[in-house]
Amino acid sequence: MAQMRRTPARTAPVTLQAHARLEVETPGQGFTDITREAAAFLAETEAASGLLVLFCRHTSASLTIQENADPDVRRDLLTALDRLAPRDLGWVHDLEGPDDMPAHVRALVTDSGLSIPVIDGRLALGTWQGIYLIEHRDAPHRRDIVMLFTGTARN
Amino acid sequence: MAQMRRTPARTAPVTLQAHARLEVETPGQGFTDITREAAAFLAETEAASGLLVLFCRHTSASLTIQENADPDVRRDLLTALDRLAPRDLGWVHDLEGPDDMPAHVRALVTDSGLSIPVIDGRLALGTWQGIYLIEHRDAPHRRDIVMLFTGTARN
Amino acid sequence: MAQMRRTPARTAPVTLQAHARLEVETPGQGFTDITREAAAFLAETEAASGLLVLFCRHTSASLTIQENADPDVRRDLLTALDRLAPRDLGWVHDLEGPDDMPAHVRALVTDSGLSIPVIDGRLALGTWQGIYLIEHRDAPHRRDIVMLFTGTARN
Repeated sequence: MAQMRRTPARTAPVTLQAHARLEVETPGQGFTDITREAAAFLAETEAASGLLVLFCRHTSASLTIQENADPDVRRDLLTALDRLAPRDLGWVHDLEGPDDMPAHVRALVTDSGLSIPVIDGRLALGTWQGIYLIEHRDAPHRRDIVMLFTGTARN
Repeated sequence: MAQMRRTPARTAPVTLQAHARLEVETPGQGFTDITREAAAFLAETEAASGLLVLFCRHTSASLTIQENADPDVRRDLLTALDRLAPRDLGWVHDLEGPDDMPAHVRALVTDSGLSIPVIDGRLALGTWQGIYLIEHRDAPHRRDIVMLFTGTARN
Repeated sequence: MAQMRRTPARTAPVTLQAHARLEVETPGQGFTDITREAAAFLAETEAASGLLVLFCRHTSASLTIQENADPDVRRDLLTALDRLAPRDLGWVHDLEGPDDMPAHVRALVTDSGLSIPVIDGRLALGTWQGIYLIEHRDAPHRRDIVMLFTGTARN
């Protein structure tokens, strides 16, 4: 049996929402760390505590939270995604090229959106967690992410 | 390095939550577009800006955001899910039939819930994004989805 | 065509956020049911309606909502995760052992966060849904989960 321990709940009012768009020019397939941009948005909003939602407005790119220390992890994650959604599977939808349908499958098994608590003005990420946009297409693309904060601001 | 650009944050109060249940009778395995129902719920609520959460109350059906243009994409996604969670893998849990355990695995790798920002009264979906319920079982099922909006209403 | 039916929207104010940390000592690879802890947090907060977000602060453990009836389902899900992310794939990142990189891949295809509506003071889970922390590493680990409620409280 797993041991569990829960801290007492801390409460605050909910007074504010704020949103912004983040545009990312990706260099093609791979991971782009957007943690700093999310933190900058929270700083600009003077967010104190609440919820940050990130939403990717595309179906051939997606979001994930992954290890930010060893870059080999991201390299291996690309290998894993290649294996989960190979190019040469005889996809019916191939008008946009052999990397298009695998991109949709990779978006399916990862996340279109992320929800991250904000506590004491900071993202409640673990030490080794970074927020990444994953470009699934070969070619560079301009990607649109919506950031939405709901909570309370410093006063 | 990826280029990034962030728009200034726009803020609004948070005054309102609203929820409703959406019941979907699925025709068996496949994708059902529920975007229009989500939009109708927001219209009824007179939602201006905030967050829409959709939650699927089942473990053999799930949700995803995927391309809404070419139906071949959904066909290929079913092929991909079949490959990720085949029927003939010697599953221990098979009392409810050979399509039951693969259904749980497919629910595991897709989404039980979706979080979508609402801006200027509209879902902040990209041009090619639709919201889908994925039925993973062979037989028709009645599926229950909870929709929850948190934000502010038009006045 | 799928038949759909939508209940009228019910509204409430948004007045409150509350957060707490849940620490789970996992016994190694496997599923730990944390539904009861999430419900206890809501009870302590006197949550009436709104949104509960759970967030896992690790990249080699993750969250999911899955069937809570037959334990064989979780056994089969582990088999499925083993197949989706095998150990012997020649991962580059292997400093922390052969179970580390597969753990990141399993976190990638499952969820770092969950968003669950709360209605009438209760999690809007389906009858057969439980909330699980999935430990992907072999060894026991202490895992940190942040719980955040946004909504309104009983008065």
